[in-house]
Amino acid sequence: MEKIKISNQAFPGPMPVVIVGAEVNGKPNYLTVAWITRVNFSPPMLGIALGKSHHTNKGIREHGEFSVSVPGAELMKVTDYAGLVSGLKTDKSGLFEPFYGELRHAPMVRECPLTMECRVVQTVELPVNEFIIGEIVGVYTEEQYLSNGKPDMEKIDPFVLSMPDNHYWRLGDPVGRAWQSGREYQP
Amino acid sequence: MEKIKISNQAFPGPMPVVIVGAEVNGKPNYLTVAWITRVNFSPPMLGIALGKSHHTNKGIREHGEFSVSVPGAELMKVTDYAGLVSGLKTDKSGLFEPFYGELRHAPMVRECPLTMECRVVQTVELPVNEFIIGEIVGVYTEEQYLSNGKPDMEKIDPFVLSMPDNHYWRLGDPVGRAWQSGREYQP
Repeated sequence: MEKIKISNQAFPGPMPVVIVGAEVNGKPNYLTVAWITRVNFSPPMLGIALGKSHHTNKGIREHGEFSVSVPGAELMKVTDYAGLVSGLKTDKSGLFEPFYGELRHAPMVRECPLTMECRVVQTVELPVNEFIIGEIVGVYTEEQYLSNGKPDMEKIDPFVLSMPDNHYWRLGDPVGRAWQSGREYQP
Repeated sequence: MEKIKISNQAFPGPMPVVIVGAEVNGKPNYLTVAWITRVNFSPPMLGIALGKSHHTNKGIREHGEFSVSVPGAELMKVTDYAGLVSGLKTDKSGLFEPFYGELRHAPMVRECPLTMECRVVQTVELPVNEFIIGEIVGVYTEEQYLSNGKPDMEKIDPFVLSMPDNHYWRLGDPVGRAWQSGREYQP
């Protein structure tokens, strides 16, 4: 079928939805983020792309610390809410119950099945966003979300965001195994 | 329930699976990547984190161009295969049928429902990976994958990767609308 050219505002597939936590003016603040990826294997690092004007960025800049919490689908509404209202106008510190690991200014969300605390390594300035790279220094979960000692996606029940249709989706059928299913491919 | 600390090799939720294309030694080469995110809204930019030793990186470095193709779930096996074998040892140019947009060295995968061509803006050097930021200069699809002129996730049927369990998943039930469902939340 014929290829057609569409808007450059495109997105490379469904993205993980997380809650970024930071301490702003002495209080936890939370922001919903889906522009996130691991960027380095070892030491483990991830990066988040934030609009420069977000309230959360101030706290990250001040303390060089932030958290990433992965919400289960039952937290969808409050997670979306955290991305709808700005911490500049609305105190979001009571949205979740914070807990801390090794870092003092990276409030993680107790209600989330999987959380990580990060120390800022580098910030890349881009035209309207900044891409903040952090080293993962602590990861937390609960026994109920593990299988064989590892985070179990079906127990965590994360959700992803597709754009530009702006839908949240649960995970569906497993379709294969990475670095394994390809062995069945016959070139 | 009590929080427990687990390995720092953690991942912020399920990640989009794409095929990165580049021209290496005059031939198209393809690499499966899931460490990818949009990083700037306007102009539209995305970033991919690649292990520094990958064959693909050479072509990206030489030409300053690469492509991102979003495979549907029916391409799972060949997509995984493209991530299993190195272009250094195996000629992967015949795995897919390439097509080109505006850029001459960013082969896109004709079999994929959604593809984009990117011009390198910046490369961030990290300990074992490099994070390559590109501006999206062209996006291509087919009429059959659109609804109301926009890419339709159910028609595209993308798949995501969760780590460290290394499973591929289709999208499941829609659970909400971004920047909308949160309005129903009562703080």
